[in-house]
Amino acid sequence: MKSNICVIGAGSWGTALAIMLSNNGHQVTLWSWLQAEAELLNKERESKEFLPGVKIPKDIICTHDLKVAARNKDIIVLAIPSHVVRQNANNIKPFINPNQIIVNVAKGLEEDTYYTMSEIIEQEIPDARVCILSGPTHAEEVSRNIPSTIVVASKFDEASKYVQDVFMNDNFRVYTNNDVVGVEIGGSLKNVIALCAGISDGLGFGDNTKAALMTRGMIEISRLGLKIGARSETFSGLAGIGDLIVTCTSMHSRNRRAGILIGEGHDLDSALSEVHMVVEGVKTAKAAYELSVKYGVSMPITEQAYSVLFKGKNPKDAVIELMRRDKTNENNIDYVSK
Amino acid sequence: MKSNICVIGAGSWGTALAIMLSNNGHQVTLWSWLQAEAELLNKERESKEFLPGVKIPKDIICTHDLKVAARNKDIIVLAIPSHVVRQNANNIKPFINPNQIIVNVAKGLEEDTYYTMSEIIEQEIPDARVCILSGPTHAEEVSRNIPSTIVVASKFDEASKYVQDVFMNDNFRVYTNNDVVGVEIGGSLKNVIALCAGISDGLGFGDNTKAALMTRGMIEISRLGLKIGARSETFSGLAGIGDLIVTCTSMHSRNRRAGILIGEGHDLDSALSEVHMVVEGVKTAKAAYELSVKYGVSMPITEQAYSVLFKGKNPKDAVIELMRRDKTNENNIDYVSK
Repeated sequence: MKSNICVIGAGSWGTALAIMLSNNGHQVTLWSWLQAEAELLNKERESKEFLPGVKIPKDIICTHDLKVAARNKDIIVLAIPSHVVRQNANNIKPFINPNQIIVNVAKGLEEDTYYTMSEIIEQEIPDARVCILSGPTHAEEVSRNIPSTIVVASKFDEASKYVQDVFMNDNFRVYTNNDVVGVEIGGSLKNVIALCAGISDGLGFGDNTKAALMTRGMIEISRLGLKIGARSETFSGLAGIGDLIVTCTSMHSRNRRAGILIGEGHDLDSALSEVHMVVEGVKTAKAAYELSVKYGVSMPITEQAYSVLFKGKNPKDAVIELMRRDKTNENNIDYVSK
Repeated sequence: MKSNICVIGAGSWGTALAIMLSNNGHQVTLWSWLQAEAELLNKERESKEFLPGVKIPKDIICTHDLKVAARNKDIIVLAIPSHVVRQNANNIKPFINPNQIIVNVAKGLEEDTYYTMSEIIEQEIPDARVCILSGPTHAEEVSRNIPSTIVVASKFDEASKYVQDVFMNDNFRVYTNNDVVGVEIGGSLKNVIALCAGISDGLGFGDNTKAALMTRGMIEISRLGLKIGARSETFSGLAGIGDLIVTCTSMHSRNRRAGILIGEGHDLDSALSEVHMVVEGVKTAKAAYELSVKYGVSMPITEQAYSVLFKGKNPKDAVIELMRRDKTNENNIDYVSK
């Protein structure tokens, strides 16, 4: 079954997915927001900026023409930063099919509104069948055919099964899941914990500290998630702890790298300018903190991250405060019953 | 509140805990199974073998005399390999108090019987109040006061709260939990997954692969755990995924190191002789596999680990088989309803 697919966004993840889908036997169009980038990709058949050394198959069409890219496709993949998802959903709207399957891979919540990506896309394109693809998948590794696993989440079972068929291959295992909000909350909020793990590394703390932050971090994320309708298993899965693990332990992660710089004493602005790419975790820390207040959910790690990032709190003091909290029971999980 | 504590076992973890408890203000006796080791520790006030550079406070009594060590103690900590827990429980029995609080830190299941450590201790000392201490805590880091977290699990709430009070300090945060079997299954079976993570690293796979093995590995462990009475939250906690994270990502872990050697092409015997220490995960892989058969629980990663370790299966083929399994839903978790 050959599908006709458009990938919107020629960053590392969009390009890696385009290459993989082409190798899976599908017809792929890769859209770049920059005319010059699209031309360069077409000419050089390599993304020297994002995936150096990985060949872009010659039957991938690289274009800056949105009409060419989006018209009459079986699947449209949105592989752009979260803060431009609404705008891009709007831009493609005139060209897409009715009940278009849209696979979003951006992780994050909208600033101020805290809408998830699927909510934003559904607001802009109400009849779209939105799928979320999320899991422990560094683009660099997927582009080198390293065995990887991922979750596709959708309210539309047929759509997620179709996406599973289209994306899956011997090195890329796709699991379906219908807990869309859980997958999105897990994928977004893990960036906050990755920042914290980086801060811990930057402070010179150890594997014990980082494992504690990751475990208790995912527990507080799932506490919030359950409050807004997610299922706890999702946070124990690939789009929850799986994604968190890969983000916290790899130097590929810009969230972790920004955290390391902050732990080493940089302020937020200098850390961000040094990392030089979008650091989703910073904006998400604010969103997560405000959601925890709104829903009355205890999220002590997120709260400390917020204080360090936005209130100038010393990161070491934040860790000390986390360690000295009241003695408690591990299963003090009020989210189960509420 | 000053307690009188005996630590049985002067390996890295026993020694680190003895030092920490002494620094917490308690009277500590550290027992070694070797007369010469006890004398050396008393003289040098340092475990050059296990914790080089870390001072043993002078008020810790290091001894090989079990009567001196075990008699009239508030808490006895068993910090010995899992395969000698039964024998040591028996050895201390003549000297201990009625309703003795025993804190076990060994992780593993008994060979052939597959009893957990708490079951073994209760069989040998029926009136003991057994507590299990487990979590992401490399001894080397705890001995250097790196912030760490851990779980104490017991059927006896008063005992676990007392242990929490005695062990907790500003760099060592203790959570109580009454899911004893969950904490023990998590702590034991994670060593199998750590071996697999090491094998994946040794094969040259990436962070994506390892995160997938860890996530899906803990899911299958919790599937078994739920079948034998554990709670799912425990596997999402410090003694579950937390401990797995630290074991899989650190070179401190001998299970992971043995796995790396196997992935690089060593056979089991040569890997074990090179690592030169007890590798609990090897025996546990056999136990876990046989438990999965006994209880009819699907544990595909454990099954492949068993085939690689004991049936000479090529590790690369094992990974390929895992990736090529039938398409499935992530929440295909039959353990929830059964």
